[in-house]
Amino acid sequence: MKIELASSYGFCFGVKRAIEIAEKYENSATMGPLIHNDDEINRLKKDFKVGLYSKLSDVKPDDTVIIRTHGIPKNDLKDLRKNTKKVINATCPFVTTPQNIVKNMSKEGYSILIFGDTEHPEVKGVMSYAEDLDDVNVVLSIEDLEKINFKNKKIATVAQTTKKKETYLEIVNALILKNKEVRVFNTICDATFENQDAAREISIKSDVMIVIGGKNSSNTKQLHSICLENCKDSYLIENENELQKEWFKEKKSCGITAGASTPDWVIQKVIDKIKSL
Amino acid sequence: MKIELASSYGFCFGVKRAIEIAEKYENSATMGPLIHNDDEINRLKKDFKVGLYSKLSDVKPDDTVIIRTHGIPKNDLKDLRKNTKKVINATCPFVTTPQNIVKNMSKEGYSILIFGDTEHPEVKGVMSYAEDLDDVNVVLSIEDLEKINFKNKKIATVAQTTKKKETYLEIVNALILKNKEVRVFNTICDATFENQDAAREISIKSDVMIVIGGKNSSNTKQLHSICLENCKDSYLIENENELQKEWFKEKKSCGITAGASTPDWVIQKVIDKIKSL
Repeated sequence: MKIELASSYGFCFGVKRAIEIAEKYENSATMGPLIHNDDEINRLKKDFKVGLYSKLSDVKPDDTVIIRTHGIPKNDLKDLRKNTKKVINATCPFVTTPQNIVKNMSKEGYSILIFGDTEHPEVKGVMSYAEDLDDVNVVLSIEDLEKINFKNKKIATVAQTTKKKETYLEIVNALILKNKEVRVFNTICDATFENQDAAREISIKSDVMIVIGGKNSSNTKQLHSICLENCKDSYLIENENELQKEWFKEKKSCGITAGASTPDWVIQKVIDKIKSL
Repeated sequence: MKIELASSYGFCFGVKRAIEIAEKYENSATMGPLIHNDDEINRLKKDFKVGLYSKLSDVKPDDTVIIRTHGIPKNDLKDLRKNTKKVINATCPFVTTPQNIVKNMSKEGYSILIFGDTEHPEVKGVMSYAEDLDDVNVVLSIEDLEKINFKNKKIATVAQTTKKKETYLEIVNALILKNKEVRVFNTICDATFENQDAAREISIKSDVMIVIGGKNSSNTKQLHSICLENCKDSYLIENENELQKEWFKEKKSCGITAGASTPDWVIQKVIDKIKSL
């Protein structure tokens, strides 16, 4: 069986940057998981003693705290800066952009629409930057959009950086048809675009697709959804232990892609295991 | 054969308003055709002595000049106001809107994209309001868009009021994928929307479609194009004299729609003629 990697996959700029920051601050701790990959977080813990807090109240005054790539809500950042010795901001710059857009557009009197998942830490952070918290709306689909009554006639919209561009366009189109001015900020990250396009391309020609990444990683789930459109035998796994022999039975070509938080060493282990099956 | 009118058709707000203005100013003249309908212009000429100038140099100091619904270029309006006794502005308010948007966005440093036809008087007028005339781009399709190198990273876009919304969305989508900020002003007129939706609806269930309007009227051509998508026997005519008997042979249902410049009396004559065939 031929095994082929997508032409673009895995670590993005923001994740690489965050890991480099974490490796530089031994004995620090991250506020929430630094990236959506448990294997890499365990490696940072083992090799660099980087701890992990899940709530603000656990943080101690002497801690050096690293802000995760997804960012955190504005007030949490303020509290951390007040109560902790050192705060290192590893928020991806591509996430800082929608945070600033929401702040500025909200100040200028635009109603805010975020295309994303309300429960995702990135979205929780971005939302928190609005001046008027009653006028920030988060949607995942056109159906969600139909339920919204915007306070203003002018709408500004951003997207969670890891979302599918096709769905963003659908939502934006519905907005344009109903509103006289829509200010569209395309905040979907280029790396996300490239990985999505490459996943589309390789899944069309593969008999089986393996998507490697965190089960709670937004960009990994998008890649999986794109692969499923073109290759019904597409599987999302976190590491090589989840591979099942029967997936590859009578298959001639296996395509591989990985989410933006998936380190190369995890991908290599998956490839080695597939070869051995 | 059943003859049915679209649920929305014909005269829009801007055209009605312009005709009322022209009827009020007997012995005046319009700068370019007031609306895109020769029969109605002849009626105004006959009943209200409203003349028609085709170039600025023909205007005399004592004239009362009416600005057509489509508007005219900024400098032409300035010249008219300087050289003529009285200028009455019958520019449709829905056309004044994109003129102002282009002026303001251009001032704020946005590159301007107009979805429309460079040769259409409305577009010539709207374009002229940009501060930087080298940074106003007019496109009719995605192919046109690909040839443009915008001066700025921020793009503001408006549409000719009578264009097809689906094509505008296609162009806007392509813009969004390539640019970080796109400020979308949906300047397609609601009446245009309504007539287009109604034309779509009736053309689906008709065996033959008659679209009545000026051959150089943008909104009439859009209606014809929409009808052709659903009913291959769709004909664009200016008045009843162009009807051909064989169009209706063995047809069970005939749908009728009309452009925004088509007066009811022209539509009625068409219906009477079809009945007589």
